[in-house]
Amino acid sequence: MHLSQPYLLFLGDAPDHLAAKTARGIHQWRPDICVGQLRLPGCETTLGLPDLTVEEAAARGAATLVVGVANRGGVIADHWRAVFKDALANGLDIAAGLHQKLNDIPELVETAEEYGRMLFDVRHPTETFPVAHGVPRPGKRILAVGTDCSVGKMYAMLAMERTMKARGLKADFRATGQTGILIAGEGVSVDAVVADFISGATEVLCPANDDDHYDLVEGQGSLFHASYAGVSLGLLHGAQPDYLVLCHEPGRAHMRGLPGFALPDLDACMDLNLRCARLVNPEARFVGACFNTSALDDDAARRVMHEASERLGLPVVDPVRSGVEPLVDRVLGDA
Amino acid sequence: MHLSQPYLLFLGDAPDHLAAKTARGIHQWRPDICVGQLRLPGCETTLGLPDLTVEEAAARGAATLVVGVANRGGVIADHWRAVFKDALANGLDIAAGLHQKLNDIPELVETAEEYGRMLFDVRHPTETFPVAHGVPRPGKRILAVGTDCSVGKMYAMLAMERTMKARGLKADFRATGQTGILIAGEGVSVDAVVADFISGATEVLCPANDDDHYDLVEGQGSLFHASYAGVSLGLLHGAQPDYLVLCHEPGRAHMRGLPGFALPDLDACMDLNLRCARLVNPEARFVGACFNTSALDDDAARRVMHEASERLGLPVVDPVRSGVEPLVDRVLGDA
Repeated sequence: MHLSQPYLLFLGDAPDHLAAKTARGIHQWRPDICVGQLRLPGCETTLGLPDLTVEEAAARGAATLVVGVANRGGVIADHWRAVFKDALANGLDIAAGLHQKLNDIPELVETAEEYGRMLFDVRHPTETFPVAHGVPRPGKRILAVGTDCSVGKMYAMLAMERTMKARGLKADFRATGQTGILIAGEGVSVDAVVADFISGATEVLCPANDDDHYDLVEGQGSLFHASYAGVSLGLLHGAQPDYLVLCHEPGRAHMRGLPGFALPDLDACMDLNLRCARLVNPEARFVGACFNTSALDDDAARRVMHEASERLGLPVVDPVRSGVEPLVDRVLGDA
Repeated sequence: MHLSQPYLLFLGDAPDHLAAKTARGIHQWRPDICVGQLRLPGCETTLGLPDLTVEEAAARGAATLVVGVANRGGVIADHWRAVFKDALANGLDIAAGLHQKLNDIPELVETAEEYGRMLFDVRHPTETFPVAHGVPRPGKRILAVGTDCSVGKMYAMLAMERTMKARGLKADFRATGQTGILIAGEGVSVDAVVADFISGATEVLCPANDDDHYDLVEGQGSLFHASYAGVSLGLLHGAQPDYLVLCHEPGRAHMRGLPGFALPDLDACMDLNLRCARLVNPEARFVGACFNTSALDDDAARRVMHEASERLGLPVVDPVRSGVEPLVDRVLGDA
């Protein structure tokens, strides 16, 4: 899965900011690869990028139209298709991370074939992967693990990548979910591969590298999530992390989608992740935690992070409020 | 995945007993559903069943021709196809657990359509499954977990099913791998489902049941296998076991397929499985261990099982040598 860049970001008729959060994430983390946005009548949000037609975007070098809007059910709206066919006719590929596949819509497939363009459904891997071998490999890998789903694992790893690159380090974000793949332009949606190959796909995603290179591997789910823990464990083994970052949202009432399940204690979560990680890397250790404190005011956020930091003996940050420098310091202090 | 019974077991040109081990397993555990065997020239093994042509088997009521032979690479040999087409023409379905799919061979697909018969590739699930909900459900479930792959998990659960049924208990073996599915006539090859649905598929496989009913769930892999642990964890959560049985082969030099990995200690293996199982069932506990001692003589086998039993404080049996009565006693003692 490798997307051509730069992108034209399709916002469609997004009724609010939240509906366009995929486009927002791409623009936030990779502003240099976004040549413009394409909005339809009814769109109530903007990224502040130039509004371009497909023709204008093509003239500015856009290589892929990225569907940066999600509607209810993750389907491709009928009235988007004319724009998509226009994009293909103007030499752009199309990439989407929706449940419904671009490749399941015959008129898009035909048009793509006619113009020799590609349709990328980043949620649905098309490659086949080997079984994981578990053999230690060079290069350093940092993995975000969570107390739950949707606690900021992607954000944490993108923030660390940016901070490490700003310090002149060799660092690459490795995407394991659809938004991450659209941001990185490549990656593997590990929760969509065949179960036997979760770890193998992850080994392919973050392969052997230079000794002073850091892969920042996006985590998925949680070892404590009764629906998805298998994905999390396979990803943990395949990533073979040297360093782990605990991701957590304080105050969440229960595990996402599972009202009967409380969130795990931070210590229990770290302990189980370490224990499993050390099967493939006995040196694995935590360098800190990233809290999503967006529901708290400044004082409450500071207090909850301070308390956790004291208890865990590790830096605890909110990447949005204050960045991830202390975690990068920990990684480098160890080098 | 539900196969019609009884079966005609196809041994093909199996050069030895091992090549026909799938057929042997079916015959061992479900002799009442095997009307006969079909051997081709060159076959060097027998199950002791009547040798039948497809026509003779159909006359005796056979509903499915089951491919009980595996050759190198798991492919469907060209010279088997005439027999398979003959079976379809005589009203039999065909089921196989090979890597190559029956459904990928156009002449078989066409013949099956012509005669209104089914081709079952039991290694490749065709259903879609829901995401696991993790909600406690009635009925008792017993799951085999292993220190490694291929240590006798299927055998242990089939032995417990047989013993429990002999005692008049309501018990059903639940198959999670291809041989198990052919034996049971139904099941889900959990390592072949999409990663997000490992636990969900397992919940479907062993659903809510009577309070006094026991599901004997075939395990897969090991939490300590660096290639497949994600499958094992998803299966553990989806099975929501009340009772666990530890399966182990003493003396194995390293994890199957992974020369760099030693087998885990029994205590560590039990501890990690319990810890993960208790996410979905706080009452989960081990009732004993099944050792595969086929590589040991009687004295050595007795000694190694006795030592393990003393150390673990649980019954340790070899289902082949001595049956699983002590494990069933433990389950019932708890009831």
